[in-house]
Amino acid sequence: MQMTRPLKVKGEPVGAGKEPLVCAPLVGRDEAAIGAELAAIMAKAPDLLEWRVDFFAGIAEPARVLSMAREIRARAAAAPIIFTCRSACEGGQAIAISEEQVLDAYATVCRAGCADFIDWELSSGATRFAQALTLARETGTQLIGSFHDFNATPAAAQILAKLEAMQAAGADVAKVAVMPRELKDVLALLEATLEARQRLTVPLITMAMGPFGSLSRMFGWVFGSTVSFAVGQKASAPGQVPIEDLRIVLDVLQRALAPQR
Amino acid sequence: MQMTRPLKVKGEPVGAGKEPLVCAPLVGRDEAAIGAELAAIMAKAPDLLEWRVDFFAGIAEPARVLSMAREIRARAAAAPIIFTCRSACEGGQAIAISEEQVLDAYATVCRAGCADFIDWELSSGATRFAQALTLARETGTQLIGSFHDFNATPAAAQILAKLEAMQAAGADVAKVAVMPRELKDVLALLEATLEARQRLTVPLITMAMGPFGSLSRMFGWVFGSTVSFAVGQKASAPGQVPIEDLRIVLDVLQRALAPQR
Repeated sequence: MQMTRPLKVKGEPVGAGKEPLVCAPLVGRDEAAIGAELAAIMAKAPDLLEWRVDFFAGIAEPARVLSMAREIRARAAAAPIIFTCRSACEGGQAIAISEEQVLDAYATVCRAGCADFIDWELSSGATRFAQALTLARETGTQLIGSFHDFNATPAAAQILAKLEAMQAAGADVAKVAVMPRELKDVLALLEATLEARQRLTVPLITMAMGPFGSLSRMFGWVFGSTVSFAVGQKASAPGQVPIEDLRIVLDVLQRALAPQR
Repeated sequence: MQMTRPLKVKGEPVGAGKEPLVCAPLVGRDEAAIGAELAAIMAKAPDLLEWRVDFFAGIAEPARVLSMAREIRARAAAAPIIFTCRSACEGGQAIAISEEQVLDAYATVCRAGCADFIDWELSSGATRFAQALTLARETGTQLIGSFHDFNATPAAAQILAKLEAMQAAGADVAKVAVMPRELKDVLALLEATLEARQRLTVPLITMAMGPFGSLSRMFGWVFGSTVSFAVGQKASAPGQVPIEDLRIVLDVLQRALAPQR
């Protein structure tokens, strides 16, 4: 029994269909920091990399972004790359460029073939989301629709509605990250994921953040979340566990679930 | 932040307050088998032992039960012992003695000081349950009220009602084990546990069984279950994971939850 829908790049399942896929974020502030991060992270062989360009001091300089994107692509070996500028409203770093300029940076990176996936927030609104979708279609990149709540956890039905809205808007992958205020919120996130696995057709990426949320990073895949973000060198969000720890837990879980799979 | 209520023996928290406590079942058919099990299990230093006397071929012979109980007590070192005859209706082995004779066996073992806890099923009815409670009080043993459903998982509210009924009937510890038919059932068990942690005052032992249920054996303590049953040598119920695997996962979880504790 397969728990998650595979991400595919050029028709092939990422990580040869392994569940879940482990994604390491790159959050360096400049070329030297990202270079060092890449060295540390690639030694741990993640299934995916996410470049969080909102952490990058050169974000306002297209040439620096492109050159950094090319270096990441070259050093990522077979690992697909998610290109993401997380907005400050949804937990990202404050940046000095407009949303339109951000979209230009996405276009530059996609056209150079340096991203397999781009992440775009649903809350940007229908017009911007459609622009991101057009860019993705034009460049053969896949669009991850995303929603983040760093303060609280909406009810399960609302989380499900967000995931449904992403698919309806054309996203290839639907992602939701929430902050649990109590343990019950972690259960709500898992319940919504399980329901979305039944109702939707796109792969899902869901997680609760913070210490309690770390539970979902370890066993959310059983409920349908295709990707778990884990720390290669430095976390990009609260509650991410080190890749080594995640793999240890996954190994035990895989064996415990084996009779049912 | 403490996740579970401690079990106490002679006023001291079992396992020095560690969470969760790991309990290994003894399911040997005769003295030789149990002796071998003890050797294998004690090497793994469980926090508790449960002797499942319904597996014991000598169950109808009081002298054999007593002598075996004494050997277990002698070899259990500091680990407290749960004495349990699980009924066939709730997943135990078929046995040739009456419920009254079973209660006699409990009395023999408790009076000899060979049990710290006894497990008695809520479904035995008010009269029998009260007899078990009286025995427990007389002998300074603690009573674990229990309910098992090997076929399905009742709704969260019903699981909570069982736990509440145990406390109301005088149990010192309330235990529920259910079989998930789908992943949603595992969430129901965890939800009921969380709610019971808020509403009740007794320590709780809850678990979902089978492969999916193994998740609750690893993470259920975060939601309030004081004890996880794990395989020392041989499982007593489906989905129990090896003690070594459980400890590996617990170690990662403890670190991931640390900022919140």
